[in-house]
Amino acid sequence: MSKRPIPRLCRGFRDIFAGDISARSEMINRIKQVYERYGFSPLETPVVEYVDVLGKFLPESDQPEGGIFSFKNDEKEWVALRYDLTASLSRVVAQYVELPRPFRRYQIGAVYRQEKPGPGRYREFYQFDFDTVGAGSMAADAEVCCVMCEVLEAAGIDRGDYIVRVNNRKVLNGVLESVGFPVTTDPSDEKAVWVDILRSIDKLDKIGLEGVKLLLTTGRRDPSGDFTAGLNLPASAVDAIEGYLGTRAATRIEVCNRLAEIVGESAIGREGVEELRQIDGQLAALGFDERRVIFDPTVIRGLGYYTGPVFEAELTFEIKDDEGRPKQFGSVMGGGRYDSLVERFTGQKVAATGASIGVDRLLAALKALGRVKATYSTAQVLVTVMSKGRIADYQLIAQELRNAGINAELFIGSGNIGKQLKYADATGVPVALIAGDDEFAAGTIQLKDLQLGREMSEQILEREQWRSERPAQLTIQRTALIEQVREMLGRYGL
Amino acid sequence: MSKRPIPRLCRGFRDIFAGDISARSEMINRIKQVYERYGFSPLETPVVEYVDVLGKFLPESDQPEGGIFSFKNDEKEWVALRYDLTASLSRVVAQYVELPRPFRRYQIGAVYRQEKPGPGRYREFYQFDFDTVGAGSMAADAEVCCVMCEVLEAAGIDRGDYIVRVNNRKVLNGVLESVGFPVTTDPSDEKAVWVDILRSIDKLDKIGLEGVKLLLTTGRRDPSGDFTAGLNLPASAVDAIEGYLGTRAATRIEVCNRLAEIVGESAIGREGVEELRQIDGQLAALGFDERRVIFDPTVIRGLGYYTGPVFEAELTFEIKDDEGRPKQFGSVMGGGRYDSLVERFTGQKVAATGASIGVDRLLAALKALGRVKATYSTAQVLVTVMSKGRIADYQLIAQELRNAGINAELFIGSGNIGKQLKYADATGVPVALIAGDDEFAAGTIQLKDLQLGREMSEQILEREQWRSERPAQLTIQRTALIEQVREMLGRYGL
Repeated sequence: MSKRPIPRLCRGFRDIFAGDISARSEMINRIKQVYERYGFSPLETPVVEYVDVLGKFLPESDQPEGGIFSFKNDEKEWVALRYDLTASLSRVVAQYVELPRPFRRYQIGAVYRQEKPGPGRYREFYQFDFDTVGAGSMAADAEVCCVMCEVLEAAGIDRGDYIVRVNNRKVLNGVLESVGFPVTTDPSDEKAVWVDILRSIDKLDKIGLEGVKLLLTTGRRDPSGDFTAGLNLPASAVDAIEGYLGTRAATRIEVCNRLAEIVGESAIGREGVEELRQIDGQLAALGFDERRVIFDPTVIRGLGYYTGPVFEAELTFEIKDDEGRPKQFGSVMGGGRYDSLVERFTGQKVAATGASIGVDRLLAALKALGRVKATYSTAQVLVTVMSKGRIADYQLIAQELRNAGINAELFIGSGNIGKQLKYADATGVPVALIAGDDEFAAGTIQLKDLQLGREMSEQILEREQWRSERPAQLTIQRTALIEQVREMLGRYGL
Repeated sequence: MSKRPIPRLCRGFRDIFAGDISARSEMINRIKQVYERYGFSPLETPVVEYVDVLGKFLPESDQPEGGIFSFKNDEKEWVALRYDLTASLSRVVAQYVELPRPFRRYQIGAVYRQEKPGPGRYREFYQFDFDTVGAGSMAADAEVCCVMCEVLEAAGIDRGDYIVRVNNRKVLNGVLESVGFPVTTDPSDEKAVWVDILRSIDKLDKIGLEGVKLLLTTGRRDPSGDFTAGLNLPASAVDAIEGYLGTRAATRIEVCNRLAEIVGESAIGREGVEELRQIDGQLAALGFDERRVIFDPTVIRGLGYYTGPVFEAELTFEIKDDEGRPKQFGSVMGGGRYDSLVERFTGQKVAATGASIGVDRLLAALKALGRVKATYSTAQVLVTVMSKGRIADYQLIAQELRNAGINAELFIGSGNIGKQLKYADATGVPVALIAGDDEFAAGTIQLKDLQLGREMSEQILEREQWRSERPAQLTIQRTALIEQVREMLGRYGL
């Protein structure tokens, strides 16, 4: 391989530059504060895990499943890049028996999926999870709802612009039981009718109630012409499921009352409704009313896995879709109770509940709303170099600014002042400082407001307005450097 | 694979828990602030890169080198986990021609090496780099020295407890030229004598000057009995190299003067000395004297790669080695100028200089010095649950604390008050709050100072002292909750 490599990213991966990093870390810090406010502590696990630990071997084989990045290490062991943070959490809980219970951790990290990349779909992306392991109480689930609300508000989503939708898989299981297709204990039972029913219901968002009903009965042909065979459920079962999915009411309590009727005598169904009642009571006491958290029987959150309450946070304001039509922004957080995850290792059920933030999606929402600041330049001032022989003088100016807590970059590339100001503009630094022999002789410095030009070109300011209020360039005394720079930065809240 | 997996970490990997994460993120934030103070902006690149982009194919083959984690993706392309952050930086600079020059970035990230794991040697570890690309001026290298000093001081290393050692590979090349073994332009020229000489000198730290001299002449037998053949250099060459390595002086200027004599007429050597003089002048003007930055001809920093100034930061205080003998803590940062890195992609030389922090080593030093706080619990208060029926009341208390900015965890596991206080102790939370039916009736709450017990058992406090000054448990009015909790937390600066 002596020829030159082409500088390029791996398929499905991306670089992230200063603006997006600053916006994301601002968002992450706000969320972290909420997690810590509720007493969740950070955990970090490796990107590389054994394939068996991730539970990603194909059934009855020693070949890893597709969809993940897997390979053999030097010791010929199958390892893989983690595809989520929950599998590692379950390993940690099973591995360190000395951990206090409940174990409450938050974790942010990149996860890896070897899927077909597409617009906005990457093979490396971030998740930001919080979970409580070892607490079966509904207080833990009520808390998840509170944290979801507070995370979104702390991130910058207004109350009213989001809704946390809660359901309980036990209620759904109760409905399935009452119509004669009880959920079996093995959640990986791929062939059972209940799995097909769940899979059909899970498509509600995409194909609507009529589509779901076709899947439950005679089958459905999608717009592309593909036909999915129907489940041929009896009409009574379809009616019950339709009634369940259509359960709407003004209050969470009313939803509970209707669900209680629908699940009838099913023990698991009644348990589920009772759990929802407990969650409602605690949320109500804390002031989290139906403007923030609703009960919604259509929330499924995929097959298997979840065993009790499930949560989904949706942003309800509208954005334009690819064709320019308005649509709701949609889901940015999701989670639920999964009491069987650690069981994989230990054979023992351990209660666990929590939720995960889709970092990229939430960040996209905050950017669309203008609620995070993308700072491309960390420098607040660029100290330009007019006279090469005076480099130590320029360094002293930069040092004085830094000592005053102002981020100052000394221009250390090559090029005349015009090129340096172009550089300043490209990096997005708000203020440039210019001093040549004349200025040094007179004890003065030129301050140039570069942000003004940017706001002008974005037409934020009227030309006449800035001319009078904000001179774009001014001559200041060297002795007033800090004060004057602070004043200019203050124009932009910096 | 239907049998249960054993919950375990991959060979060479580790989990990081709350205490170490909080200490590390405190350190990282302090360092980031210095980087940004100098106008470096963040960059993030993927963990996965193409093997050819990393320059890690074996010569004349399409097989990746060992020592990295490499594998084929679904598209049958060779990819690998990055082994440092510099290779990706060079890709970025070559790939995005529109980037402003100089391009100044910092990046923190995990890097991966598939080496034999050992105590303190992991296959996944963090680097924290800053680099300026596209600036050939010595102002950039002087700045690297300043940043290294300020990073260490900001992290918590006292001035006097570290030293930044600077050398210039051009001076070393000048010495090699003057003794008749000029450095060739191809830094990967593995067979040249100069490579062997460099390799010998690079062992100075480990085998001492006499050992190096043996390698340059008749060969050396190491304590294990292995013999390394000597280079049989003429005595005049050995003398010159010894003279060079022994160059010591009280000031950087004097070191320059002596080096000027040693390199004699060598053009490259004189250029190197002149560059050191420029760095010295700028450092002196900024007040970075020989207590912080010295010129040290023994700094080599490996073979090839670096083309000009090289930097190394050492912590000079003593720690105990594995056998309990005192030794200097040693190197925690290193870097240098490498003008040929982007050339690999573009064929054009691009000036670049910077340095990298060994995050784990610096953190170990700060922990040894007690300069970072390891916070195991993010919660400041544990709200215990005495009466299950009152769960909403406990939640309201926790909410009141949180709204006042106090991190409060509600105990949502199971177990009586004794078990809950044990949990509080295990998590490290400083204050527990207890309220049963009696307290609710009387409008009071019990506050328990758990930190006191910890400090008692660490014998920080005398028993009599705390008895009088700090009651371990007190009854407060419910209405004075926030005020009293703040006071108790204040005992520990929280």
